[in-house]
Parts: sequence; structure tokens; C-alpha cells
Amino acid sequence: MDIMQESLEFHKKHHGKIEIKNKFPINDMHDMSLAYTPGVASSCLAIKENPELAYELTCKRNTIAVISDGTAVLGLGDIGPLAGLPVMEGKCALFKKFGGLDAIPIVLNTKDVDELVRTIYLLSPSFGGINLEDISAPRCFEVERRLIEMCDIPVFHDDQHGTAIVCGAALLNALKLVGKKIKDVKIVINGAGSAGIAIAKFIIDLGARHIILCDRFGTIYRGAPNLNSVWEEMSLLTNENNLVGQLSDAIKGADVFIGVSVGNIVSKEMITSMAKDSIVFPLANPTPEISREEALIAGARVVGTGVSNKPNQINNSLIFPGLFKGALHGGAKKITKEMEISACLALAKIVKPNELKEDYILPNIFNKKVASHVSKAVIKAIK
Amino acid sequence: MDIMQESLEFHKKHHGKIEIKNKFPINDMHDMSLAYTPGVASSCLAIKENPELAYELTCKRNTIAVISDGTAVLGLGDIGPLAGLPVMEGKCALFKKFGGLDAIPIVLNTKDVDELVRTIYLLSPSFGGINLEDISAPRCFEVERRLIEMCDIPVFHDDQHGTAIVCGAALLNALKLVGKKIKDVKIVINGAGSAGIAIAKFIIDLGARHIILCDRFGTIYRGAPNLNSVWEEMSLLTNENNLVGQLSDAIKGADVFIGVSVGNIVSKEMITSMAKDSIVFPLANPTPEISREEALIAGARVVGTGVSNKPNQINNSLIFPGLFKGALHGGAKKITKEMEISACLALAKIVKPNELKEDYILPNIFNKKVASHVSKAVIKAIK
Repeated sequence: MDIMQESLEFHKKHHGKIEIKNKFPINDMHDMSLAYTPGVASSCLAIKENPELAYELTCKRNTIAVISDGTAVLGLGDIGPLAGLPVMEGKCALFKKFGGLDAIPIVLNTKDVDELVRTIYLLSPSFGGINLEDISAPRCFEVERRLIEMCDIPVFHDDQHGTAIVCGAALLNALKLVGKKIKDVKIVINGAGSAGIAIAKFIIDLGARHIILCDRFGTIYRGAPNLNSVWEEMSLLTNENNLVGQLSDAIKGADVFIGVSVGNIVSKEMITSMAKDSIVFPLANPTPEISREEALIAGARVVGTGVSNKPNQINNSLIFPGLFKGALHGGAKKITKEMEISACLALAKIVKPNELKEDYILPNIFNKKVASHVSKAVIKAIK
Repeated sequence: MDIMQESLEFHKKHHGKIEIKNKFPINDMHDMSLAYTPGVASSCLAIKENPELAYELTCKRNTIAVISDGTAVLGLGDIGPLAGLPVMEGKCALFKKFGGLDAIPIVLNTKDVDELVRTIYLLSPSFGGINLEDISAPRCFEVERRLIEMCDIPVFHDDQHGTAIVCGAALLNALKLVGKKIKDVKIVINGAGSAGIAIAKFIIDLGARHIILCDRFGTIYRGAPNLNSVWEEMSLLTNENNLVGQLSDAIKGADVFIGVSVGNIVSKEMITSMAKDSIVFPLANPTPEISREEALIAGARVVGTGVSNKPNQINNSLIFPGLFKGALHGGAKKITKEMEISACLALAKIVKPNELKEDYILPNIFNKKVASHVSKAVIKAIK
């Protein structure tokens, strides 16, 4: 049975993937009186007096909302909120497994940016943090930016920043392995959607200086006729020589290729045209831009993909559980650039210099150090 | 230690009352591939094709949102959404304990009716049902009415209808015990807020014909100067003789008193002025309108309160878990009057005629028959 059919059977059997568990038994009226009326009134009044006590007296401290409008679900596109629910539930299961956090899936029946922002803001008191998920670009940028301004809890679009942080850690370790410096290397990112733009911005923060962003029409360059406001901003931060061309032009001589686009669009010839000791991260899921095997045959030295049964899986699950755990338990009201960089460096350092090799640049997601090291690093970076 | 202090310590210890539990272990990449990418795509596509499959492939079928704006929390009033959260969490714990349902607490940072309606509608795809909680009157009527029209899942304001159904079951059994008929008895309801109005309407559906509603200013009557639209409607359905007066006037000669108002406002003299074999349900919480002991001394024959450590506790927990369980598992898109009456009769029947006595008119909430009998009765009543 293939994984798609097996997963469908699995979902039918369980009727979803998460459930509620009470933290204590309710065996008699005394238990009822503690958890509910009349006793619960004391916690209500304490929080009314001092709202910060909600973090001590309720689930808020350990609870995340995983929120989507279903417009950019996996590689499936705009399938709507209800059809996106299985992904949000899966994400919640991963939050529990890897971060010990209680995450609630919420899908919203609107695509309107103003309504998304207002709705998420209005429900935010219930939660300790908000993980935005699978909201299509460019709407996701505005939704996230406005919510970060309005809310007094961390708001984080994982498809952007989670991907960027994991990718950054993989890049730092791969560069260490091949003996190149991030400030010197030429990096091509294919796919100028939310993930690609976040990766570009984040690796600039890590020190990258020579980046070219491509989308389906070719390179993002200053003066291009089709730039939206985000691409225009990116055209000023990347492509120093203002190369106008296709991906096959941009990738020539590049040290690093990062793909966050669609499957099978990078040829072996493109990989062969890259510089010596090239680093290739074709992250499209489930089908990478080029398979690991083909990239290696074509001459790549380090290959990382999103595929789970291959070495060097570059997977958001390496970051979001520990990042949110650190943010919530450290009492952060926002997730700052410093926290993200700290998380990235902590993840990279889990693989020790003497352990680094071509097929081991990132720890396995089942490595228990991952979430604990990341969360501790995040807490240290909270001001 | 008193229950308030003990409950505060209890909340501090647990940091809230509910958590997420994964329904299956995630031990390796194969488990990840089933629950998340790439396998989960098969469930997404199946739901996109046929939205009803969300009930089979996600948690929707067993999940309730417990939603409040924090405007009428317990007897504490408008304490705001964050301070209301401990009550919503407690309610969710009861949903799990008694109904086996997975309930999620959501508090909303607005009091605006239009915003409440829109926000709840927008997040409704995530859930199998919506339990509205502790929203102040008269806003709660409009919020519920509009959501029932808009949503394709059951929406139920428990403070109104849960209270009414339990109260109705207690009344039917008490009347059986004292040998009176519901159509003949004079019933006084004190407190014309959401619960009082819902009780009046529900017992009219059960056959009551002689009801007087009172609020702090006295009886609700046709032509009164202060009637809002809901009270005006009630003035046409109750108070057949259009009595103008105070509670002490209305209660004279009454067979039944139901209080959903505030503590200690009914005197022994008022109870003594009632008809022989009077039935007295002072339901204000945590302090009843008159204590059980005083009511009995004053001549009441059957007394039921909301207090947990006394006989005849009239508690919503006897209804909402089984009602929602039946509605969700029976595939109901709305909760109809027929389902409510069926739930009420099923609850009443759990106490057999030969078991009925003055201090046993309703089953204990820890009686396992309660939710199962109620849910089965509800499923039978779904068209």
C-alpha cells in the first residue's frame, strides 16, 4: 500500500490525530468544585486583577493556535479551510510530540486580509502564541506583520521563518564542511514566494552577500516589469549585478542552490554548471526540484531535501517546536530576529564539527536534544 | 482551606486544566509521513472532493468550541475574556469527563454583536459544534440566533438552553412526586435574563400554561414601561392576568418557584406564602436565592439548587455533554426543540417512578447513565 492510501486509512481509523486530555481526574463533587464552580471563580478574579496570572492559572502558557485559511496547503494550493484541517491537526501533533506544547488547529473561512487579521486578533487571548500556517503569498506578509503589531503574544508564520531558520542552519553546517564562508558564496534561491523571500532575508542576517532570487519567469531584478512590493524590496537586497535571465543563467557558477518551488525543474546540467563543492537544497515537497541521487551524480557535494527517508532532511519540525517552547516559557511577547538567529545557531551546533559529513549536516528530528537546545537558546535571546 | 483558596492552588499547580494528547505514537519517519507530509495530502484531497469526509478524517466530529466574550461569567459579570478563560477550560474538562468530547476554550476580545457573530462563523469549520458560554443578555440572543442561521454545525448557548432543559427535567419529576400537572400549576420565575427566559420558553413547550416572570423591578407585564424586545415577547407568553407587582406578590399561592437571579433575595415568608406541596428551585450560584434548609423550614416540599453538596443539584452538566455527543455523533446540523425535549425526558426518566422522592428528583452527575441516555435520546430525535 502506498503512503497516500495508508495515510487515508490511518486518518479514517483515528478520526483525526489529536484529542483533549484532562490534567487531573474528576471523580467527585469536590473535584468539580475545584475545576469549575464555585472554586474556579478565585482564578477568574485573580486574572481580572492581574492579567499576567493567566500564564500561571490557565493553559495559555503552553498553548499555541495553528491557524490557516487553507490557501496554500502543502503543494496542493488553495484547497479551502476544511480540506486544510488534516495538515493543521498534523502540525499540532508534532507540536506535542517534539515541543510538549498544546496546539489547537483553527481553520478560517475567509481569504480577506482584514478579516483574517481581525479574527485572529480577537481570538488571541485564548492562546500563548500563534503559528500561522499555509497562508498564500503575498497576503501572508501583511497578515503576519499586522498581527505582530497588534497582539501581545508571539505570532510566527512557520512557512516563512521556520523554513528559513532550518535552511540557515543547514547552510551554515554545509559551508563549514566544504570550507567556504557565507559572505563569499553565491547563492541562488528558486521560488520567490513566502519561503524563498524569508530564506533570503534570514541568510542575509546570517551574513550572506551574494544572493539571486528566481521565480518562474526568471531572476528578480531591479526594474523588472512585474515586481510586486515585496519583490521590489527584494530586488534591492539581492542580485548585486542585476542579472536578467532564467534560473539556468543564474545558477551558473553558484556555490549554493536553494529550491522552494516545484518538483523536477532543475536539470543535472544546471547542477553541473555550479561551482566546485556545490551545496544543493531542493526543498520542494513531496517531489524535490531535483532528486538527491541526480544532484549527486551531477556533481553536487552536499545535498539536503525535504524528503523524510533520505539523509539531511531540512524539516521545519527541527525548529518550530523548540522555538515556540522557548518563546512561551521564556515569556516573550514577540519572536525577534535575535531569537531566530539564536535558534538557528543552536540547531546547527547540535552536529559537532567532528561529526559533520556530506550526509550528516543536521540532526535527526527524533534527536531529543533538538527542541531542548533550541528552546534554551531562544530563552537566552529573549530580552 | 476554603474551596476558593484550594481551587487557586489547584490552578497554580496544573497551569490550567486540559492538554492535547496525540491519538497515536510518532516514533519514526514513517509515522510522520502518515500523520503529516506527504501522506496527509490524501485526506486533504478527499475532503476537498467531499467536505462531509471531514467528519471521518479529522477531529471535527468529536470537537466542540466553548466560546465566550467574558461578559457574564458565573455570577462575576463582565470580567473580560482572559479572566473568563478558567471557566471555559473547566467546561471543556467537563465535556471530556462526561461526554468524551474534545472541547477547546476560546475567549474573544470583543463585545460587539456583529464581530462576535462574524468571528465565530469564520472559525466554525474547525469544529463539530459550538457551545456559547457566559455571553450577557440580551446580546446572547442575537448572537445565537444569527449563528444558528449561518453555521452548518450545531450552535447552543448552554446558559440558556442547558439550564432550561435540566430545570425542565427536575420540574417534571418534582411534579410527578407531588401529584400535580404542569398545565395546571402556577410557576414563578425570578430573573428574566438569558436563563430565565429560556426556562420560561422551554417549560411552555413542556406544557406549562401559568407562568409569571419577574426581574429586579417586579413582574414582567404587558404595557410595562421598561420592556426590551425580548421582555415584550415574554409579556405576551406569560402573566395571563397581567399582574403588576413585586416578586412577593407574584409568589403568593404559586406551586413552583424557579430562581435564576442573585443570592438571598427570597425570604422564608415568601416560601410560606406559596401553595401546598410547593416546589422551590433557587438556582443562583454560588449562593441560592434561599438556602435549601430555610426553604424546607418555610414549608417547601421539594427543593433543588445549583449547590453541589446538597440533594437535587440542578446542574447543566447533566445535559450539555450528552446533548452535544448525541448531536455530533448523530450528524445533526442544528439542535432542534425536539432534540431538547427528548434530552429532557430522557434525563427525567433515569430516576424511576418508584425511586422518586423529595431529595431525589434528578440523577447524580457521576451516574454513567446520564450522558449515554441523553445522547441516545438526542440521536433518536434527529430528523
